[in-house]
Amino acid sequence: MKIKDFQKTLQAKNCDFAFFYNLDSSNYNPHFYYFSGFNGLGALVIPKNKRPFLIAPKMEFERARQSMINKVYEMDKKKFFDSVRHTVRKNKIRPKKIAIDNTNFNLNSFKHFRKHFKKSKFNDVALDCIKLREIKTDKEVGYLKKSCAYADQILQKTIKNFKEFKTESDVAAFLVYETKKLGLELSFNPIVASGSNGSMPHYEPGNVKLKKGLCVIDFGVKYKGYCSDITRTVSIGKPNDGQKKAYGMLLKIQRDVIKKIEPGKNCSELYEFVCASLGKYKNNFTHGLGHGVGVEIHEMPNLTLNSKDKIQNNMAFTIEPGIYFPGKFGIRIEDTVLFKNKVEVLTKTNKKLIVV
Amino acid sequence: MKIKDFQKTLQAKNCDFAFFYNLDSSNYNPHFYYFSGFNGLGALVIPKNKRPFLIAPKMEFERARQSMINKVYEMDKKKFFDSVRHTVRKNKIRPKKIAIDNTNFNLNSFKHFRKHFKKSKFNDVALDCIKLREIKTDKEVGYLKKSCAYADQILQKTIKNFKEFKTESDVAAFLVYETKKLGLELSFNPIVASGSNGSMPHYEPGNVKLKKGLCVIDFGVKYKGYCSDITRTVSIGKPNDGQKKAYGMLLKIQRDVIKKIEPGKNCSELYEFVCASLGKYKNNFTHGLGHGVGVEIHEMPNLTLNSKDKIQNNMAFTIEPGIYFPGKFGIRIEDTVLFKNKVEVLTKTNKKLIVV
Repeated sequence: MKIKDFQKTLQAKNCDFAFFYNLDSSNYNPHFYYFSGFNGLGALVIPKNKRPFLIAPKMEFERARQSMINKVYEMDKKKFFDSVRHTVRKNKIRPKKIAIDNTNFNLNSFKHFRKHFKKSKFNDVALDCIKLREIKTDKEVGYLKKSCAYADQILQKTIKNFKEFKTESDVAAFLVYETKKLGLELSFNPIVASGSNGSMPHYEPGNVKLKKGLCVIDFGVKYKGYCSDITRTVSIGKPNDGQKKAYGMLLKIQRDVIKKIEPGKNCSELYEFVCASLGKYKNNFTHGLGHGVGVEIHEMPNLTLNSKDKIQNNMAFTIEPGIYFPGKFGIRIEDTVLFKNKVEVLTKTNKKLIVV
Repeated sequence: MKIKDFQKTLQAKNCDFAFFYNLDSSNYNPHFYYFSGFNGLGALVIPKNKRPFLIAPKMEFERARQSMINKVYEMDKKKFFDSVRHTVRKNKIRPKKIAIDNTNFNLNSFKHFRKHFKKSKFNDVALDCIKLREIKTDKEVGYLKKSCAYADQILQKTIKNFKEFKTESDVAAFLVYETKKLGLELSFNPIVASGSNGSMPHYEPGNVKLKKGLCVIDFGVKYKGYCSDITRTVSIGKPNDGQKKAYGMLLKIQRDVIKKIEPGKNCSELYEFVCASLGKYKNNFTHGLGHGVGVEIHEMPNLTLNSKDKIQNNMAFTIEPGIYFPGKFGIRIEDTVLFKNKVEVLTKTNKKLIVV
């Protein structure tokens, strides 16, 4: 995406090329994926005024050629960074300054990389990439909408089948099964947190019996690499008055804050609105109000107290207030929303408290 | 694991403490997990001669307290590295030298970190951690055995049910469903590559019809964070003579190379043995022979041409020769093995070519 825009940044910063890499199959480099559409192992070089190219190890070559980048080199030296230098030279680039991504470059790789480009200076463009990604293209909006529609579809099927599940793992397994059946990926490991486990926002579902009471289900898929994110809290058995009241309050706040979204609005104000609305429960809200979604499940903008971000057109992000009572229960209600001239809630699953 | 051993390293290197962190929920820091058993967001400080402690944001605090580290602080400043400095001071540590992990420290975080410890020097201990992890404790061996047994169980059930699957995604979904039902995690996204897709070692299964011919299934789970890894190639419909011959050859080589494993053996020799055995097909073998497994799916030792590693007691690793014919088919046969006085193949699923 947006390679031409990014090349303008490179020209403005007088960088000869930008370098992105991923050498570790258990990590994910969102910028590498964003520009290339390739999530395998290798490197991406984006020259400031020529076609970008990939360098991939032999075992990844065939897959790399199916990415958005149609100029692909096979790694031709034993060592990865030797191949990078060699391929850059082959392309007649003698870099004075190289743009790198400090947030996805580890100290060890950088030590090796700089040895191969001794005469070059380095310029961190992580923030430029993050900022590019923050504003979605129409193509990305299309992917996000489809991703949210899939998440809705799977979550609704899961809620409908809830009687069949005995454990938290059963619920998580069903969510993942339906995701994979559709040839999709997860955007993160689903959270299924019943009873007192619900008070841990990042709880990992265990092979443990579903407890009576509220159950937080936080789930999302990746469609073409684009993440959706939705949370619903359901009630296993009849909720008590305290739970009903807390749920009703949180739902009202979630709906109200969505109405407050408008261009130029400070994200921190949205967060503060929620805290103020929670009143005496504001300390039971232990995380941010939301985050951007795209090729990463957490990206810009940040909807937190200290955020400097403002709402802009073509931003996609979550709105997810929660309240947590350690040892008792938790509630979170989350939607993925898009701001494009007006707010559009992309996740459309019913938000009333459902008894399952 | 092995915190005391690691503290000896810190003492020998004259480091006051070691620092590990994870601030990104879409990444995984294996050293952080290895020492703490905590896979959430936060930081781990291991002083050279005191109890280690975790620093976790409020939303992760409850989960952090359930980890192997029983001294846990809640992040008490707005900014993460401010909290780290503050907590280190509270523990009366005035570091002259801090051990860090260059392979899991990005340039951006390091820039912030070093500002908070201006008077300290830094010492990379990534390799020390990797080396510690290479040799498994008895507890880890127990986890790995269980992890492999689960992988076998799930893979066998999948092969048994194969007639029910129409697409590659169906197979992957079933593998994941069974994994999650047991409350386990995947050690990586399963590979299900039928027909010509089998020639891409890291192929991602699509929502595409299973093609007649050979189908590579590469799968593993995590049990208590410990990875298993197994590949079987099955035949959808009757294999032709060429496929049968290639499979038979590869299976013989896989069995033969396992017999060659002995203490002190160079890993590169094992790789070379396979290449020599493949004869004219050696260029159709496009990846390494194997890799260590543990809290990471790829760790030391490396069984590649350029590896300097030698087989030692209590190492666990894969043996996975493969041959790939682009546009035609691929075959890979992989086991996770343990060397503990003798070789033990931990993944026990039948290796004969099964027609499904």
